[in-house]
Amino acid sequence: MFILLSIYISGYPIQFESKMNAIAIFVGGSTRTSTIDGISIAGASSEETLYTPTLDLEYIINGIPLTKNEIPVTPTGLPTPAVITRALLRKIKIPYLVVDSGLYSKLKVPHVKIPSSIPGNNIEIYDAMPKGTAKAIFEESKLMGEIISNKQDIILLGESIPGGTTTAASIIEALGFKAIDFISSASPNNPRDLKRKVIENALKRINKGDDVFTIIDKVGDPVHISLAGFTAGVLKNVTTVLLAGGTQMGSVISILHRLNILDERIKIATTKWIANDKGSNIFKLIEQIDKRIEIIVSDVDFSDAKHEGLRLYEKGYVKEGVGAGGVMILSKYFGIDIEDIKKEIYKEYERLTTIGKGNN
Amino acid sequence: MFILLSIYISGYPIQFESKMNAIAIFVGGSTRTSTIDGISIAGASSEETLYTPTLDLEYIINGIPLTKNEIPVTPTGLPTPAVITRALLRKIKIPYLVVDSGLYSKLKVPHVKIPSSIPGNNIEIYDAMPKGTAKAIFEESKLMGEIISNKQDIILLGESIPGGTTTAASIIEALGFKAIDFISSASPNNPRDLKRKVIENALKRINKGDDVFTIIDKVGDPVHISLAGFTAGVLKNVTTVLLAGGTQMGSVISILHRLNILDERIKIATTKWIANDKGSNIFKLIEQIDKRIEIIVSDVDFSDAKHEGLRLYEKGYVKEGVGAGGVMILSKYFGIDIEDIKKEIYKEYERLTTIGKGNN
Repeated sequence: MFILLSIYISGYPIQFESKMNAIAIFVGGSTRTSTIDGISIAGASSEETLYTPTLDLEYIINGIPLTKNEIPVTPTGLPTPAVITRALLRKIKIPYLVVDSGLYSKLKVPHVKIPSSIPGNNIEIYDAMPKGTAKAIFEESKLMGEIISNKQDIILLGESIPGGTTTAASIIEALGFKAIDFISSASPNNPRDLKRKVIENALKRINKGDDVFTIIDKVGDPVHISLAGFTAGVLKNVTTVLLAGGTQMGSVISILHRLNILDERIKIATTKWIANDKGSNIFKLIEQIDKRIEIIVSDVDFSDAKHEGLRLYEKGYVKEGVGAGGVMILSKYFGIDIEDIKKEIYKEYERLTTIGKGNN
Repeated sequence: MFILLSIYISGYPIQFESKMNAIAIFVGGSTRTSTIDGISIAGASSEETLYTPTLDLEYIINGIPLTKNEIPVTPTGLPTPAVITRALLRKIKIPYLVVDSGLYSKLKVPHVKIPSSIPGNNIEIYDAMPKGTAKAIFEESKLMGEIISNKQDIILLGESIPGGTTTAASIIEALGFKAIDFISSASPNNPRDLKRKVIENALKRINKGDDVFTIIDKVGDPVHISLAGFTAGVLKNVTTVLLAGGTQMGSVISILHRLNILDERIKIATTKWIANDKGSNIFKLIEQIDKRIEIIVSDVDFSDAKHEGLRLYEKGYVKEGVGAGGVMILSKYFGIDIEDIKKEIYKEYERLTTIGKGNN
């Protein structure tokens, strides 16, 4: 006998069972698009962005990255949003997996490998991946999604791909929707003109009649197509798929739209820092593709955080990533109240900032 | 509110909840010990045994192997026991993962990679792995086990490593217990004298005072230490660990004994073909290590199978592997009756034997 509860977050009702089965999956990969100077701040330097997803995923599994003995930071030293993700995964204690779908640097923690995945090229100049790669990544991810979601109610899908808002916008535009004006950035100063130039050059390689997989091969990346594949697979079993991320999840929605497998069980779960962002508009982005897709917004606020690195989220820094918004929302479904959610995040942030001072 | 049920299998009572959470994990790897002529029939030829675990794991994920377009068979054409495993995994619909812990040939299906794992050398002549490898595999597998078993009641651990009964016996003997006279074989004619020679030569490299990880590095393989690591990790969360395999699971028990982390939640789950085998004795093997470890025996019998390939199990061929016994037992826990279990296996066997005749 299960007790049905109803929780309202930003006006979106979600029903769940007290014995809810959930698994979280975090897909990481690289696109050399992130090394274009000025396009991504998901790393201390442009070249560092290639290591960021590996360090993010190692950190959420191991508590400290292994490939380099440092937490990914922005050029101004702000730590990865994976801090939020790890803090809450350890609180709600669900099974989770990290996935290598085209990482530049191999993971040194146990992980799922999507066999056909490889890092994407810089889409401004080159096709992202050899012909056939996107289709193979999609099918492999779909198969994994079907099997891992057996007997599950909710699957949360997060991502880590620096440069991902640019490749995502490129995918969305190539699939016939508007993205450049709607897409977000980890920086408070979204380099929109630079992104527009990159995307416009990429789109020149698209031919009329290219199918969705050819489009990804040309102007996409290995992560968003994997997320689309996982989503397609887990729909075999679950009642809810949480696409845990910001505007770049629009690319997953647009891929699934083109493949004609969108339905109301698929929801975007994100932070209020994305929802309130003046430099982007996730609601308009998604609405133009499919009005049925709900966007669930976490109400966690860091105004009272002791650490400046977290208070700066309220000023538009970082905003989202590695499933942070979705994991905060999932924590509410599991009955953790907002003060406890913040307490766990602050505690983990405190642990990180004292690592190396003999306190890990 | 859950209904507690009690099921008796071969006299062993198991209690479980009607909403039981279970995940199955199948660890594959290679040891070049399997290429010693005559030691393993887990492949059509000695060299083919190196591909068998890859084909087994690809098959249980994908329904047909990808690396080669063929199901692993013995030299006389008997198919892998993975047939039993796949048939029932699809019936009970639990999440499952396949793990590369030192495969000779990379998997072409999505899988978990244990980063430090590599194929083992032929232990008769060489150390199995470079110093430090076993410890790294153990720790990585333990970490994965801790995370994937969150909110689970039962974890089933299966294996696929041709030559594994020989490396397992070598580990058990090196850890101070008797194994050579107790260990099983996939062949009805267990090549015990050959195994004894290989193991005796391997054990010459062991020094008094070698710790358990050094012993595995010298005379073990990458799979059994991974299984021990997974077991150590999942004990953080579960009420039951089913070590799904035959006598080679004795090596996992002996490793955990030496590490002082054995307890009654760890059970061996195997087939009646192992339990009744005149050429081996799993009960004496385990009893000498720890009397608390239950051996649960599946009562599935293939006497009435239409296909000779299955009826030959009753004559001592194949016997066990890729978690077959454990998955049959787990199916009973999930309320599948024995006739339905057999029906599913026979149906899958039928599908396999008609693949390539335009019927997959």
